[in-house]
Amino acid sequence: MDLDLRKISEPIKDELDEFKKAFRLAMKSKVALIDLISKYILSQKGKKIRPILVLLSAKLCGEINERTYIGATLVEMLHTATLIHDDVVDDAKTRRGLASINAVWKNKIAVLMGDYLLSRGLLHALENNEYNFLQITSRAVKRMSEGELLQIQKNRKLAVDEETYFRIISDKTASLITACCEIGAASATDNKSNVALLSEFGESAGIAFQLRDDLLDYVGKKKIMGKSAGSDLKEKKFTLPLIHALNNSSKRESKEIVNLVKNGSYSKSKNIVFDFIKEHNGIEYTEQKTAEFCETAKSKIINFKPSETKETLVNFVDFIGERVN
Amino acid sequence: MDLDLRKISEPIKDELDEFKKAFRLAMKSKVALIDLISKYILSQKGKKIRPILVLLSAKLCGEINERTYIGATLVEMLHTATLIHDDVVDDAKTRRGLASINAVWKNKIAVLMGDYLLSRGLLHALENNEYNFLQITSRAVKRMSEGELLQIQKNRKLAVDEETYFRIISDKTASLITACCEIGAASATDNKSNVALLSEFGESAGIAFQLRDDLLDYVGKKKIMGKSAGSDLKEKKFTLPLIHALNNSSKRESKEIVNLVKNGSYSKSKNIVFDFIKEHNGIEYTEQKTAEFCETAKSKIINFKPSETKETLVNFVDFIGERVN
Repeated sequence: MDLDLRKISEPIKDELDEFKKAFRLAMKSKVALIDLISKYILSQKGKKIRPILVLLSAKLCGEINERTYIGATLVEMLHTATLIHDDVVDDAKTRRGLASINAVWKNKIAVLMGDYLLSRGLLHALENNEYNFLQITSRAVKRMSEGELLQIQKNRKLAVDEETYFRIISDKTASLITACCEIGAASATDNKSNVALLSEFGESAGIAFQLRDDLLDYVGKKKIMGKSAGSDLKEKKFTLPLIHALNNSSKRESKEIVNLVKNGSYSKSKNIVFDFIKEHNGIEYTEQKTAEFCETAKSKIINFKPSETKETLVNFVDFIGERVN
Repeated sequence: MDLDLRKISEPIKDELDEFKKAFRLAMKSKVALIDLISKYILSQKGKKIRPILVLLSAKLCGEINERTYIGATLVEMLHTATLIHDDVVDDAKTRRGLASINAVWKNKIAVLMGDYLLSRGLLHALENNEYNFLQITSRAVKRMSEGELLQIQKNRKLAVDEETYFRIISDKTASLITACCEIGAASATDNKSNVALLSEFGESAGIAFQLRDDLLDYVGKKKIMGKSAGSDLKEKKFTLPLIHALNNSSKRESKEIVNLVKNGSYSKSKNIVFDFIKEHNGIEYTEQKTAEFCETAKSKIINFKPSETKETLVNFVDFIGERVN
């Protein structure tokens, strides 16, 4: 199956262009250095998954309007801010095929630029009196940092069970995707139950997105991904493929693998752990769970009347669950 | 003159204790790692200048109330977040006499904790429907990062004139202090002209605060300051003592000094630049400017009726302008 994101989002091509214009305008600054970095960020071609979800959710519930673009700009700014901070903390040298902000301008400027975009995004909502959007996104930003910190805390003790894993990915990834769908819907309708449905759609789609991400770390190809597989294992980060394999093996074997991940060098443990995961169905189980969350997502919008937008959202969920990069 | 901050804030001792209780409660988290770091932050004894200003501004304009504590908690959280990020970007090992968050938990956790506190602070205002406080503080956070980035941009070209310098310190420091006074006042009165007066009071007091900080970097004692003098010069950061001396010397001499700062090693240039600043009245000029801004601050509250609170605010401004650490 070959899912092309550009083809999927074709039905909202014009609106996406409109969003890009609004985003470009909102990123302008009178401080030359900020403006320079903003232009650089705009030249990094991201997948724009979050703004697309805002637009599609709005269109499914009503008409895309000025408020939709404000919401899309808000979430894309917050997302950009967190990516910049992520690259600082991971000391990542590239982002979207270009050098990262910290690689070009150093950590100090990157942290400040992230803080700037965070407050700039919130102000964008405040200036337009979109307090509801603000509440939705602030809660998402809080959950994102909570999720990341919970993941670090749990991984330190090498004690991540499946339930905790799902809580972590719900907080760190699904929270913002949920916010996207909720904001998009709320921008176009006052129908609370439809807004709630889109929010639940986002939660499941967001979890599927992260499951796919964690799977790709074990089965992805460097050429396509832009990063080498196994980076989670290298960081001793427990994700579902490994968690399931551990749950699905004998106590003795499970203990051995945890010890190997904990104390062994990555180069030494890599092949053993990869084989262990395959042997205990860690890959299939993660694929199955991803498919389940994709189905749950789609079920949330099943009662909306048939339309090109609905079809696009369904294709979008399929893309999330089956993407290769 | 011996100004003791604790003595100055004696008249609001009970309210400050009340604030500390509220702040401690707001810092609690269900994520164990966040809670642990929060407790560590609470054990670092800061001067609490910003919450004190919120409380005093409220008391000057009316009565300290629930909204005042919400505002004080909001600004202290944002301030704490920026300090944590500052320590990451400056690779600082200590803060308030204890090891910094990045020194104890590494950069990744420190950046995430800063982001968490930023969103937590904003949510604290949102949950209490304090949209006005939110607008005031988001604008301040934006100006803070803008000011820092403008400073970096200008220092790179070694082209900081006095006007730009004042714009930078207004954005990076005075903005949050202005927000403190404005929020405090707005929590206690609907009188717009009084709120505006307190905002202007904060702006001048904030500029005086940063002027004093920049002066102390040239004349402070390590034992008192907790950091060695000359760190701005070491980072090739142009502050008023040096800017004034450059403006006040011959073109030839000025060029020589800029070249020395730009290309010379710090150990080689330090004594020459310190002498140059003294010779061209950089220290006196900065002291004079600090005193001017302190006077402007005090003039903003001159028409409030005499009270212990008014006296305390005046003493507070004197403390800001004459503090030795």
